[in-house]
Amino acid sequence: MDTTTFDVRTGGSFACVDVTERVAEWVRDRGDGLLHVFLPHATAGVALFEMGAGTDRDLESALDELLPREEERWAHGHGSPGHGADHVLPALVSPSLMIPVLDGRPALGTWQSIVVVDPNRDNAQRTVRLSFLPG
Amino acid sequence: MDTTTFDVRTGGSFACVDVTERVAEWVRDRGDGLLHVFLPHATAGVALFEMGAGTDRDLESALDELLPREEERWAHGHGSPGHGADHVLPALVSPSLMIPVLDGRPALGTWQSIVVVDPNRDNAQRTVRLSFLPG
Amino acid sequence: MDTTTFDVRTGGSFACVDVTERVAEWVRDRGDGLLHVFLPHATAGVALFEMGAGTDRDLESALDELLPREEERWAHGHGSPGHGADHVLPALVSPSLMIPVLDGRPALGTWQSIVVVDPNRDNAQRTVRLSFLPG
Repeated sequence: MDTTTFDVRTGGSFACVDVTERVAEWVRDRGDGLLHVFLPHATAGVALFEMGAGTDRDLESALDELLPREEERWAHGHGSPGHGADHVLPALVSPSLMIPVLDGRPALGTWQSIVVVDPNRDNAQRTVRLSFLPG
Repeated sequence: MDTTTFDVRTGGSFACVDVTERVAEWVRDRGDGLLHVFLPHATAGVALFEMGAGTDRDLESALDELLPREEERWAHGHGSPGHGADHVLPALVSPSLMIPVLDGRPALGTWQSIVVVDPNRDNAQRTVRLSFLPG
Repeated sequence: MDTTTFDVRTGGSFACVDVTERVAEWVRDRGDGLLHVFLPHATAGVALFEMGAGTDRDLESALDELLPREEERWAHGHGSPGHGADHVLPALVSPSLMIPVLDGRPALGTWQSIVVVDPNRDNAQRTVRLSFLPG
């Protein structure tokens, strides 16, 4: 199994970071197989959705409503106000995602981008692990 | 890696389409391995839940409440009113699902069905990609 | 493909059961590959989050709000009051999770635990299936 990691900067606010290009570059010339995208973090997820048409902002506002950042709601007591919500996120937006690769290209739909979703204000850098199982 | 695609009709309203039988047919005689079910679409997901006892309607009403179809809520500006919600869906209901296969059969629980969840009123046909990694 | 199952007791109330140690023990000495964690159940999920700092309780309260256990909300008519919510859960918290394994160890982040999330009051025992694809 080939595996690698790279870092992304997610900054000090809610962030959606499109990593599609970096992922596509890594699988180039690998033929067919399954690609695993994984975040070794407890307060972020990775998802497939359309970037560039407002969905990143829509996801942020939806998550703010689904998991409100009111400090008194959360038992988790560390970090910035509302950080408890960040720890619930990966149960809903998983840090693990599998993608088919055909002829060295992620077999994504036209509007699918691979996006690191990071609501955490306290952690500005994230690691992404890619693993490839050839078919 | 063996891979194939097939199409499902999801129609012009919220749809849950049970694809368990089609998937089971495709893995028959494949022995042991892992099956990947993938939708190359930005406004649909694939999930495992019980069909036939009301959960499809319950999921629709839950999603309508979690991601309300009010046009003014969403930054995404294309499509039918509320279409912005459809674009957030795959962050919560992933278009990627892995299932163990044993002796040519999906090793599902008694009440688990493989279901394409499509809230999108604007796209009546969907493609499902199956990929099999033998063990 | 090596595969096995083990049982966990989740009891008669909402439960988050940390299975990280049992999983780690099973992959020891397996080298590199991808590990699949799967629940053959229609009313439970498996997630990666931090145990021991309140997030299990935060997830319970978040799910109680997102999928309220009011009997009249749900079309699903079996089981204890609110059991319809349990059947929607796996669409949001998937029963399928992939984890990279490096040198016989799950390549998890410091705060990630593998957790069986079971809101179902009516089913006190669950089966976990592990499958390993060597790389």
